[in-house]
Amino acid sequence: MSLAFSLLSRDGPARRGQVTTAHGDFQTPAFMPVGTQGSVKGVLPEQLRELGAEIVLSNTYHLYLRPGTEVIERFGGLHRFMNWNGPILTDSGGFQVFSLAPLRKLTEEGVRFQSHIDGSMHLLSPEKSIEVQAALGADIVMALDECPPGEADRSTVERALELTLRWLERCRQTPLRGHQNLFGIIQGGMHADLRARSLARTVEFDLPGYALGGFSVGEDKAVMRRVMAEIAPRMPVDRPRYLMGVGTPEDLVFAIGCGLDIFDCVFPTRAGRNGVLFSWAGRLHIRRNQYRLATGPIDESCGCYTCRNYSLAYLRHLDKAREINASVLCTIHNLHFYQDLMRACRKAIEEGEWSEFSARRLERWAEGNSGENGDGQLED
Amino acid sequence: MSLAFSLLSRDGPARRGQVTTAHGDFQTPAFMPVGTQGSVKGVLPEQLRELGAEIVLSNTYHLYLRPGTEVIERFGGLHRFMNWNGPILTDSGGFQVFSLAPLRKLTEEGVRFQSHIDGSMHLLSPEKSIEVQAALGADIVMALDECPPGEADRSTVERALELTLRWLERCRQTPLRGHQNLFGIIQGGMHADLRARSLARTVEFDLPGYALGGFSVGEDKAVMRRVMAEIAPRMPVDRPRYLMGVGTPEDLVFAIGCGLDIFDCVFPTRAGRNGVLFSWAGRLHIRRNQYRLATGPIDESCGCYTCRNYSLAYLRHLDKAREINASVLCTIHNLHFYQDLMRACRKAIEEGEWSEFSARRLERWAEGNSGENGDGQLED
Repeated sequence: MSLAFSLLSRDGPARRGQVTTAHGDFQTPAFMPVGTQGSVKGVLPEQLRELGAEIVLSNTYHLYLRPGTEVIERFGGLHRFMNWNGPILTDSGGFQVFSLAPLRKLTEEGVRFQSHIDGSMHLLSPEKSIEVQAALGADIVMALDECPPGEADRSTVERALELTLRWLERCRQTPLRGHQNLFGIIQGGMHADLRARSLARTVEFDLPGYALGGFSVGEDKAVMRRVMAEIAPRMPVDRPRYLMGVGTPEDLVFAIGCGLDIFDCVFPTRAGRNGVLFSWAGRLHIRRNQYRLATGPIDESCGCYTCRNYSLAYLRHLDKAREINASVLCTIHNLHFYQDLMRACRKAIEEGEWSEFSARRLERWAEGNSGENGDGQLED
Repeated sequence: MSLAFSLLSRDGPARRGQVTTAHGDFQTPAFMPVGTQGSVKGVLPEQLRELGAEIVLSNTYHLYLRPGTEVIERFGGLHRFMNWNGPILTDSGGFQVFSLAPLRKLTEEGVRFQSHIDGSMHLLSPEKSIEVQAALGADIVMALDECPPGEADRSTVERALELTLRWLERCRQTPLRGHQNLFGIIQGGMHADLRARSLARTVEFDLPGYALGGFSVGEDKAVMRRVMAEIAPRMPVDRPRYLMGVGTPEDLVFAIGCGLDIFDCVFPTRAGRNGVLFSWAGRLHIRRNQYRLATGPIDESCGCYTCRNYSLAYLRHLDKAREINASVLCTIHNLHFYQDLMRACRKAIEEGEWSEFSARRLERWAEGNSGENGDGQLED
């Protein structure tokens, strides 16, 4: 273990901390932009730094299939390959196998699956996932878990939970590089007692960090929040807590209020590529006619590169003209907004104003987003 | 007229100069990146500056149809709309009407055409072209010309030449803003005597600059070069000479050797989006298997952002994965290469080494590009 977590301040369950890795520190609550294929779509590493990102996530499934570990090993790992020298987290590949691969067969050994790229057959086992992540060289690597669908029945969820625990043991037995840190994933679906069991048994592994998994598979938000509120505060206090694959600004504020520290989601990047933009006042859709002649920025109070230099009317034009720079500029704004949100959350926790801050935010967004598209219908 | 041209040095017909506009100077020989829709695809203005671009071109046809002049006028012109405060040149829209619009009818009055976006009908007349360009506010605006196809017969070319001259008079009668400068276009196709006639009659207008048009409509390169070599040196010495829409690095070196000063072409940007990369050694195609494990940059001697930070293997991966950053990084490199080429040409002229420089370049590229794809088969 080469990861250190310092808890700097608390305000109720909400936490403000710092994680130290071999590739530098990052402040928590932290949002990780997603660089699925070793690249945050449309945003270069310098731009990520400028907008305040300190750690990025990349996907083992995608990188294993293309370009393949042999290529990335030639660079000594993902940091140099993708030109990001800050902390990186890689997932196990499990979630993508369960959601993207056309054919798959789950056994005790692992998941046999077909590549969505060329149809070739592969086995993703706990050992294989760790071996690939060792080659990628991320600072935080995730254990392989089984991710049953949100609507799975209790016995399926329970079986998955137990399999995930056996796989975690095999993950732990598989060597990592010295700077890498294995996080375990708490499963149990929407069942509070199964989540509690998974938590207790996962924590026995005494890992450098823990994640809540299985929350981005289409379940009801109210149920997700109930489970999150019950489980997150019971995760080890002295380890970073990572909520996988969630979500909207509202979700993040809620989750931080439950004591979660680290987040990732494709939502801000994918929304940006679809012209959906975030602001403190809520979401707006750049394609709307009302922005045709709008000379002002997305958000007067935003300090991002896009808002400092471009108008709503220009962004609308680029989006309608399908210009690459529409994706670039809208993604920069959205990621900057997510980082601004994290900065504001950290400040509110430090200053003991979390309750007021989070209540105000959730109330404001509930108004601001009424009538706007949700997050369900974005093109890739 | 608010444009000044200083001829700084000459080496045979090749010229080294400086153009001063209300939005700053640019050095010639100059290559203008193409921002068709008010945006150089995948490259932001700061990145254009960093790679050395001093002037950009944008297309009147596209901007007139979308977002429309009303939108851009609201910003006082294209400079602020697209966040580029350096010199801008806009074309007349004629070339795009002749190449993109599905229905069109040419009369003395102008060209009636159907929008390729929504099917609406429009008239592009000399007056209309200038009115739109006045609203766009470019520093250099082009007169409307008729562009007959490369295979047109002599009488068609002659008729187009005469119409272009009558249109030029109407363009000159249409008011521009104080900082704007009208360039006339010399037509005449592949017929040296018609080119000479067009040149003589166009120069009578005493304009701040002159262009050679009609060279990007698919004619034979050898014929193009013969005409260029005959006509360019006879264009007014004290005015900038602009070769429209051409071309490859080889074309530019040849044209500079004929005494041309200003260039634009979609080739480096479009090639970049298709993974075709330029270097002093010739072209390479990033999709090739030979780059799968290549840890070095596109060109060891290149100082562009892409070559300073990324490997061939990474670019190949991004291109194959269809990541936006593949287009971004490859376009940055190609535009930087074109600017490097201009810098090298200017230096060779200043130092009186043009003949050796250009001969060496053309010889080297003839070898380096053998077996590589040409410029004919790139996706948009």
